[in-house]
Amino acid sequence: MLSEAARTQLSQTLGDRLSLSKSDLALHGRSETHFPTLPPDAVAYPETAEEVSAIMRTCSAHGVPVIGWGTGTGLEGHTSAVRGGVSVDFSRMNKVLDIHSEDMDVVIQPGVTREQLNEELRATGLFFPVDPGANASLGGMASTRASGTTAVRYGTMRDNVRGLEVVLADGRIIRTGTRARKSSAGYDLTSLFVGSEGTLGLITELTLRVHGIPEATSAAVCAFDTISGAVDAVIATIQMGIPMARIEFLDAASVAACNARDGAEMPVMPHLMIEFHGSERAVAEDAARFGEIAEEFGAQGYAWSTQPEERRRLWDMRHNAYYAILASRPGATALVTDVCVPISRLAQAVEETVADIADSSIPGPILGHAGDGNFHAILLVEPDNAAELQAAKALSGRMVERALNMGGTATGEHGVGMGKLDYMAREHGAAWDVMSTLKRGLDPDGLMNPGKLVRQN
Amino acid sequence: MLSEAARTQLSQTLGDRLSLSKSDLALHGRSETHFPTLPPDAVAYPETAEEVSAIMRTCSAHGVPVIGWGTGTGLEGHTSAVRGGVSVDFSRMNKVLDIHSEDMDVVIQPGVTREQLNEELRATGLFFPVDPGANASLGGMASTRASGTTAVRYGTMRDNVRGLEVVLADGRIIRTGTRARKSSAGYDLTSLFVGSEGTLGLITELTLRVHGIPEATSAAVCAFDTISGAVDAVIATIQMGIPMARIEFLDAASVAACNARDGAEMPVMPHLMIEFHGSERAVAEDAARFGEIAEEFGAQGYAWSTQPEERRRLWDMRHNAYYAILASRPGATALVTDVCVPISRLAQAVEETVADIADSSIPGPILGHAGDGNFHAILLVEPDNAAELQAAKALSGRMVERALNMGGTATGEHGVGMGKLDYMAREHGAAWDVMSTLKRGLDPDGLMNPGKLVRQN
Repeated sequence: MLSEAARTQLSQTLGDRLSLSKSDLALHGRSETHFPTLPPDAVAYPETAEEVSAIMRTCSAHGVPVIGWGTGTGLEGHTSAVRGGVSVDFSRMNKVLDIHSEDMDVVIQPGVTREQLNEELRATGLFFPVDPGANASLGGMASTRASGTTAVRYGTMRDNVRGLEVVLADGRIIRTGTRARKSSAGYDLTSLFVGSEGTLGLITELTLRVHGIPEATSAAVCAFDTISGAVDAVIATIQMGIPMARIEFLDAASVAACNARDGAEMPVMPHLMIEFHGSERAVAEDAARFGEIAEEFGAQGYAWSTQPEERRRLWDMRHNAYYAILASRPGATALVTDVCVPISRLAQAVEETVADIADSSIPGPILGHAGDGNFHAILLVEPDNAAELQAAKALSGRMVERALNMGGTATGEHGVGMGKLDYMAREHGAAWDVMSTLKRGLDPDGLMNPGKLVRQN
Repeated sequence: MLSEAARTQLSQTLGDRLSLSKSDLALHGRSETHFPTLPPDAVAYPETAEEVSAIMRTCSAHGVPVIGWGTGTGLEGHTSAVRGGVSVDFSRMNKVLDIHSEDMDVVIQPGVTREQLNEELRATGLFFPVDPGANASLGGMASTRASGTTAVRYGTMRDNVRGLEVVLADGRIIRTGTRARKSSAGYDLTSLFVGSEGTLGLITELTLRVHGIPEATSAAVCAFDTISGAVDAVIATIQMGIPMARIEFLDAASVAACNARDGAEMPVMPHLMIEFHGSERAVAEDAARFGEIAEEFGAQGYAWSTQPEERRRLWDMRHNAYYAILASRPGATALVTDVCVPISRLAQAVEETVADIADSSIPGPILGHAGDGNFHAILLVEPDNAAELQAAKALSGRMVERALNMGGTATGEHGVGMGKLDYMAREHGAAWDVMSTLKRGLDPDGLMNPGKLVRQN
């Protein structure tokens, strides 16, 4: 809750960049998925780290919760104002500050989006590869340790953040990491803040690794009779050391949704979609070698191309698959699951999930980042149907239980937020208490994005 | 200090695996480099995590410091018993517990050494790439966030540890991470413990990423007139996206030392040594493309080979370069520096260091992991010559100051220990206080490897 005194002080700091408008509050409290809207009491639009620090000092002095906000594309209710407070919207801190081509890094503000960064990098021959689908802010992507289709080659946000500037709960501004490619100088604070979902501090600057735009790209697609055929082809390809840039799995239900909305005309069977990055010769060789492996595991209709239009058509379809799936049940809301398992268990995990969904009354097409062992069932529920939401949550819970029994995790890339909170004790055991200890050390009053990630104080 | 009561209790836990022998204490208190011997009061040889937990509970109850010990090959006095206490020697916890070929991971105990692991992996077609030179224990390598010659391709320990079992200061046994390739489930505790130098807990099990043994390997070597020629060739190669597995720099003084001890017959000039991993065709193509780039930047005598004997001769020389340098001043002790800078600043950093060393009375050949921007001056001092040690420390301090001014770090891969403690406030600013906050949260009595990494309580 925001007292009169706190609001006055924040207004003095921000002027008309402190918003109390109803629509703004609702926008910052809404969820991309099935969570109810939980609006903050105010929205702050800082322009500098010093302003963020002033906001934090005010909120700390008055016991006001603070929630970081990028683009609102999180899937686990990360930005919901569970206890009210101030939503800190980073959209005005959206500058690319420095591009260091020789060092393959960039320094940016947290409100820069993934697409904006790649637009600004275009002339340099560099690109930022992490691609969660949504055009999220990079501060938000770092906060949830996001990844997506390219993690199999380029890693997740964990692997692509070199350093951060962070404002702590008491308003101190710290810097973590350096611009060197590696360091053994003490605790890895960068990794601690990446994935901390705004519960330990607010990111006000990022130094990111960037990569050279590949000389050539090839893309391929093929169908399999069985899920295990597709997964076995992936495992064999990884073991051969063929460097895939993306390797995506779509189950038959996802393919049907893409056919229906986007006229894809794919056989309604499990599919793999693959991309290779490298020299002209390497990507052709990789695509050919993958084709041989895939055929050994029963692939049908293997086709590959280096033509930009062909590739774009394929990946546009993959990127839009979530929306095609949403459209397959008009008016539905999604509960998006996100388990990740050791790849040796992926086929079993997907097959058991498909069977479990088939036994329920809820549609749930499955998409996966097969190279990472990470997959999503898009569980489609009627918005106000409590029984369906309950059933979807139960399905999700069983997916998590299976993943944990296989040595996996409840969330591969979406984060904990509110949606995965109930599974953390089961996943981490006593290590979850350690997370609470760290949280209390850095945010003793529990003001930073309360109700997310760690146990309630 | 170890009270009678604590010693009795530890003996009850460990029997004759608690050693009080003078030679054992001295061995566990000695330094590989210039630090004085600081022996513990006892050495414990646990065989299970439960025993480590019992040791911790006893030491915690009696206020006894605890220092983890792998192979004693650390370079910054990491295992010195600054305040006495118990050295926990992991040499009996040296089993490879599981090899998961499909998932490309292994589960091991912390006393397994790098060479032992690769020996046990040989038949599987997999290998563990991180190679700091010494045949260190993997628990120790994780604790210092070690890397070495292959980090440019395979990353450091940060990138190759998937999960840990850790015994905390209060004896709790926790597990961090999972066997999944990625996770967004809360704070990255694995990364927090990797590089924490035994100051937050003792690692009792590791899950490591392993990689496929490349189908083919090529190695190359060439000389340059200038340091900046060599570094510019490295930068251009990285920007072209040519995937180097190793790219090592030796200055003229290092080459002279190798010539003198190992009869290397290289021209006494700066050199690069390079390795490529991949298919037969790819490594030949990569070596040829690198040769063209190197020649553009003035390389001389470029030669490459895929023959095992040729490659082994080259890399044996590189691995033994430290000893060749030590032998170049008989009886000398080394102070090994370890700065890491953005690669765009590497040539300047090395050139200024060479000039600074030339102005001093101390020999200091330079070796570097050029692809990472990380280099070492091996400053050779007479063991009991306080003036020389002082001068070497001053040189090292100036190297750190230059590295920090360039956006780099005081230590790329050796860790803080005692040797880099004085630079941490300068490198991290307020973030070093955050490290102390985390330390106090997990080790409130300051018993875990005191005197290392964080500010003294």
